[in-house]
Amino acid sequence: MTKLEVVFLGTSSATPAKKRNLPAVVIRREGEVVLMDCGEGTQRRFLELGLGINKEMVVLITHLHGDHVNGLLGLLQTMSMSQRGKRLTLVGPEGLYLWVKTSMEMLQIGLSFDLQFVAARPGVVLRREAYLIRCARANHSVEAWSYVFEETPRPGVFDSRKAVALGVPEGRKWSTLQHGRSVTVDGRTVRPREVLGPRREGRRVGYSGDTRPSATLARLFAGVDLLIFDSTYATRDADKAADRRHSTSVEAAELAKKAGVRRLALTHFSARYRTVSALVKQAREVFPETFAASDGMFVDVPAKAQ
Amino acid sequence: MTKLEVVFLGTSSATPAKKRNLPAVVIRREGEVVLMDCGEGTQRRFLELGLGINKEMVVLITHLHGDHVNGLLGLLQTMSMSQRGKRLTLVGPEGLYLWVKTSMEMLQIGLSFDLQFVAARPGVVLRREAYLIRCARANHSVEAWSYVFEETPRPGVFDSRKAVALGVPEGRKWSTLQHGRSVTVDGRTVRPREVLGPRREGRRVGYSGDTRPSATLARLFAGVDLLIFDSTYATRDADKAADRRHSTSVEAAELAKKAGVRRLALTHFSARYRTVSALVKQAREVFPETFAASDGMFVDVPAKAQ
Repeated sequence: MTKLEVVFLGTSSATPAKKRNLPAVVIRREGEVVLMDCGEGTQRRFLELGLGINKEMVVLITHLHGDHVNGLLGLLQTMSMSQRGKRLTLVGPEGLYLWVKTSMEMLQIGLSFDLQFVAARPGVVLRREAYLIRCARANHSVEAWSYVFEETPRPGVFDSRKAVALGVPEGRKWSTLQHGRSVTVDGRTVRPREVLGPRREGRRVGYSGDTRPSATLARLFAGVDLLIFDSTYATRDADKAADRRHSTSVEAAELAKKAGVRRLALTHFSARYRTVSALVKQAREVFPETFAASDGMFVDVPAKAQ
Repeated sequence: MTKLEVVFLGTSSATPAKKRNLPAVVIRREGEVVLMDCGEGTQRRFLELGLGINKEMVVLITHLHGDHVNGLLGLLQTMSMSQRGKRLTLVGPEGLYLWVKTSMEMLQIGLSFDLQFVAARPGVVLRREAYLIRCARANHSVEAWSYVFEETPRPGVFDSRKAVALGVPEGRKWSTLQHGRSVTVDGRTVRPREVLGPRREGRRVGYSGDTRPSATLARLFAGVDLLIFDSTYATRDADKAADRRHSTSVEAAELAKKAGVRRLALTHFSARYRTVSALVKQAREVFPETFAASDGMFVDVPAKAQ
């Protein structure tokens, strides 16, 4: 099974704390990287964690607040200085591209690679061979988007005994069936479903960015394997969460429960809390499969039980 | 004597290295801070080094390349989120203010304090009670400026025995003389120079930013107590230094010698060198009072011998 992992680069909210950098999360899968938000210091975290900035990369930006994008210009500049040749795809609110282009001109940052911009919109915004990116509106103080990374489903497990019993000889015809296409044996058609188990769904990772919980997000994140959700505040500061269009850890847990996700990672913690153990405890009472993200944490997203 | 110290926040050149952050240097003097350049991650270094971002502050930007300014937006945002009230003065190339204003609008960064901008120009650009900032053109690939921080000179040491001998009674009249003004005793005028030693010159710290060495800079930095100079390259890469409008460590040392400075701090090291000991060694052959700056280094600038 291909390894799929999530790496937390920064887990603070708008101001950095001593042990938490500004928001940035990476999804890694077979040499491809999806970076979600790009707070100040992101390029340095890539260096420290040995992630490599010159891989195939898609950058998803949730919204145009400084703390979620201030690392972007430096990342693009360093990529160019290391002669990156691979295209980079940037997804985010319409205004993002204008800011990046304007700043690159003013700061004389020339790019060594092709920068493709895709404006966020509800639905599937990007398709790659191995995965797609799904998007929905978040509920924050400015235009904001939440994302789901979704692996392409794979055909079911091939049952070689059934193939033999049906008279299909080992070799090219097995491979054709394994790839989901029918073959003909002695004038008879053998269909993939006769020799394959049920289709294996891809794994999914959801990322909320800054948001209030909402029915839209409960739908977007339905059944994801790992949900990374705004958990800026503890319940005692619920009024601040409502006021500033963020979520408490319990609100994150309630949404995770409603959406039926497998695991919930809390992130984007306010610097006002010395530790986040109370936030995790409160959330676990609602949704036990909850943990607090921390800077430098690698989380494996295992295959689903078939 | 008031403590004057220099703190190196970032000593890399355009791309960060594992142990070197992007360019930023602080001068601290009695609760006032002068920040020179503001590479990505500067606000985090302030936090880690306990420097405090809400002090009286002047920010001097040498030029508009991303690696020297990418930390500015995040620093301004965090200052505002912590309700900074004190004015902040920003000095730099004309285009700097446009980029900051444009980005603040696009990223919706509102300021809680008054941001004053002063365009760099040759000569004295800023005067405070305790110091002034002097400026001259550097020689880089874009408009670039070098700066000198210069303490206000103080009157000489007060000789109380001379004052007594001249019949000046201890008290308000001593204080008046100490502040450089004459007093009258029994109808006779006593002048400050009769009771004070020679005027004590202020300490001076020079910062080159990215530049080739030049006669202009040798004049600007003449006799400074500490010169912080571009030392991107080793001598074997002198062609790159010339090509990219930077300096080698030896060129920095030659300028330091010509300018008659007290000490030379090399900085802005290219990430290509695993260690910078060769650069320091080469420079010391020309100017022995040379050292390599490193991230998190505090350097005391002692008073001059009187």
